[in-house]
Amino acid sequence: MKTSTYSIVATGIIVVLAAALIGVLVFMKNQPPLTRGVAPLVEVAEMEPDSSVWGVNFPNQYTALLQTETNNTRTVYGGSLPFDRLEEYPNLRILFAGMAFSKEYNEDRGHMNSLRDVNEIARITEASPGTCYSCKTADNPRLWAEMGMREYDRTPFYELGERISTPVGCANCHEANTMRLIVTNPALEEALEKQGKDWRTFTRQEMRTVVCANCHVEYYFAGEDNYLTFPWQNGTRIEEIAAYYTEIGFKDWTYPGTDTPMIKMQHPEYEVYTADSTHYKAGVACADCHMPYTRDGAVKYSTHNVRSPLLNLDTACGACHTDVTYVAERVAIIQDQVRERMEAAEEALVDAIAALIEANANPAADQALLEEARLLHREAQLRWDFLSAENSMGFHNPSEALRILAASADMARQAQLKAVLAGGVNAVQAAVP
Amino acid sequence: MKTSTYSIVATGIIVVLAAALIGVLVFMKNQPPLTRGVAPLVEVAEMEPDSSVWGVNFPNQYTALLQTETNNTRTVYGGSLPFDRLEEYPNLRILFAGMAFSKEYNEDRGHMNSLRDVNEIARITEASPGTCYSCKTADNPRLWAEMGMREYDRTPFYELGERISTPVGCANCHEANTMRLIVTNPALEEALEKQGKDWRTFTRQEMRTVVCANCHVEYYFAGEDNYLTFPWQNGTRIEEIAAYYTEIGFKDWTYPGTDTPMIKMQHPEYEVYTADSTHYKAGVACADCHMPYTRDGAVKYSTHNVRSPLLNLDTACGACHTDVTYVAERVAIIQDQVRERMEAAEEALVDAIAALIEANANPAADQALLEEARLLHREAQLRWDFLSAENSMGFHNPSEALRILAASADMARQAQLKAVLAGGVNAVQAAVP
Repeated sequence: MKTSTYSIVATGIIVVLAAALIGVLVFMKNQPPLTRGVAPLVEVAEMEPDSSVWGVNFPNQYTALLQTETNNTRTVYGGSLPFDRLEEYPNLRILFAGMAFSKEYNEDRGHMNSLRDVNEIARITEASPGTCYSCKTADNPRLWAEMGMREYDRTPFYELGERISTPVGCANCHEANTMRLIVTNPALEEALEKQGKDWRTFTRQEMRTVVCANCHVEYYFAGEDNYLTFPWQNGTRIEEIAAYYTEIGFKDWTYPGTDTPMIKMQHPEYEVYTADSTHYKAGVACADCHMPYTRDGAVKYSTHNVRSPLLNLDTACGACHTDVTYVAERVAIIQDQVRERMEAAEEALVDAIAALIEANANPAADQALLEEARLLHREAQLRWDFLSAENSMGFHNPSEALRILAASADMARQAQLKAVLAGGVNAVQAAVP
Repeated sequence: MKTSTYSIVATGIIVVLAAALIGVLVFMKNQPPLTRGVAPLVEVAEMEPDSSVWGVNFPNQYTALLQTETNNTRTVYGGSLPFDRLEEYPNLRILFAGMAFSKEYNEDRGHMNSLRDVNEIARITEASPGTCYSCKTADNPRLWAEMGMREYDRTPFYELGERISTPVGCANCHEANTMRLIVTNPALEEALEKQGKDWRTFTRQEMRTVVCANCHVEYYFAGEDNYLTFPWQNGTRIEEIAAYYTEIGFKDWTYPGTDTPMIKMQHPEYEVYTADSTHYKAGVACADCHMPYTRDGAVKYSTHNVRSPLLNLDTACGACHTDVTYVAERVAIIQDQVRERMEAAEEALVDAIAALIEANANPAADQALLEEARLLHREAQLRWDFLSAENSMGFHNPSEALRILAASADMARQAQLKAVLAGGVNAVQAAVP
């Protein structure tokens, strides 16, 4: 190559590069400023109950939420098909004798069905308080703000129902516009306060568990106003909850024929999960598994089609676990182990109840022993129910689930023995096959 | 740059590069051929019992093995300090009444102490068979080859002892020179065969668990020859082992005062771990945690200072887990849960035994019910002992441990009730406080 030719080519290249650089810089300067997040299309009113309004700004999250209405599927032990638990587990009819759950006990469906399900449920009567709507509607944050929770709770169910029209939605967990995760249920705020905790100091990852406790917890209706209360004053462990109920002398119903003051557990997913479970201690939030980050085309968002991770293994478990086949197998092994011990506890409770009924009907029975047997029955059954009413067949906290169910069966067998001993000679003869 | 100057520089570069390439090729050709492993310094005789001979070739592994003699440390629930388990867990004196473990039950020390420990143990008597040496010495592979296991087992303990001089060592798990992992205990080979398994087809990773089963298993002495046998014909689950013992009508001793035909479990680490534990299903071998790959200067080797991973968290757990603080906390939580339920099972067993003694002494007792109570006592206690005799306080398989202990307490409480019912009126009056 001649030197003059080389110079011409090199000069050409320099000119082209310089022009390209200037072009790119000009293009970048004309772009809108880079900001985090997206500009909202609409302004959402504070505590807006209508999720479709929020959905204009967040179409992915909103349309995923809509899927919870129809996308209901059964898993081995749960899921969101409204199967009849009384038919699936016939012991429940005996264990809940004398109260509404022995008449109707269906598996719940996805979030978008919450209002329809509570309005159709046979356990609701004229006597039911407004409290029963506490976890069923996105109208709640606004109603609680307007009425105060005490007024809300003491309003009769059907009367309050006239002001309610939306199922669970955005307003139950989010602050409008900032989309910050917030505690909206006053009962949760009060329960945390009693433990000296302020959710406003929690990290976002902590809130991705705590907002679920707006609903997925054990609760009771306190006093004549049916004031929604979480029994967490001593803590959220089963022993602490049981001790609290004993301290305040609370019962949900009296077992017919045994006179046992019983506790019905609700759905203590939060309490079971946070009792030092493997996943919780590893920093995993409820939303990590039940609302996993999902890719849809070019977008990645936390799905709001809240459901069992078993229906979504690759996305739900695969974010951390490289081998989801292994994960699925482990879940199956653990749930089978838990179900085995849950059934053993049920059988022990059924036997204890039979012995208690016998002794209770015997005027000569040792009353002190009989009372001991009743208290063991109560303690055994509320422990069993802590896992039975909890939706995960123990997987939220496998070793804790098995520990509690072991204690339940042990206590139920002790109740059975004490009832037999209380009944004396006749009871023994009746108990011998 | 002139064209002629450029040509001279380019030619120079080409010559230098070509010379360098030829030099590297010549260097590589003169290297010794690449082979896997290291050339041995000494040839080791087949089944050589003296580990120090093997140690000439493998000084890191050998000197690590030597550490098991003195490097004995207590963990919360175990470890390798020879603490008195009867003092630690007083229920054991009751549960093992009528047999040697109620007199002496010390925690075992590291591998290099195996021969000293068995020779000093008070449970060994003139009547003990040679079988008791089965897991105590590296002389075994040679003795089994020379004598056959039947002759070995029926030789009196003290007579056989004259031919034994080494503790557990290299020959118990390795083939000389190839260092291949092998099953050396004929009882293990036979037990695997009965399940249709041939260890020669196992992967190396599988062998890193199976060689531990040369010793860390439940076994019994079959027949007059005290023939070492693993009760695995139906499988290695506790229910399968229990069914096998029932099928062959085996008992280790008769419980005094209750006439229960009892089973003493030994150290079923292999059976507990392989019963679908989390770690086992994830492909983790015993050696991964108890003999982790260890870096010493420039060398990396599997340490043969076999001990609790709790004493070596960074190396043992850190190979897979990024956060060993989290791991240590989980182990503590799980072991506390397991110990709680183990103690509950012990208390239920103690109560069952008391009721059985009462009913057994009563000539008017219902014999059929009493027999049912005895069988429940046997089944409950062998389940409890499966975890009690196993060295990990349940951590080898947390959910399985809790499942089995729950069943144990449930069965023991049923045994107690049946014993009370068998005893009739007097038993009831005696049982009422």
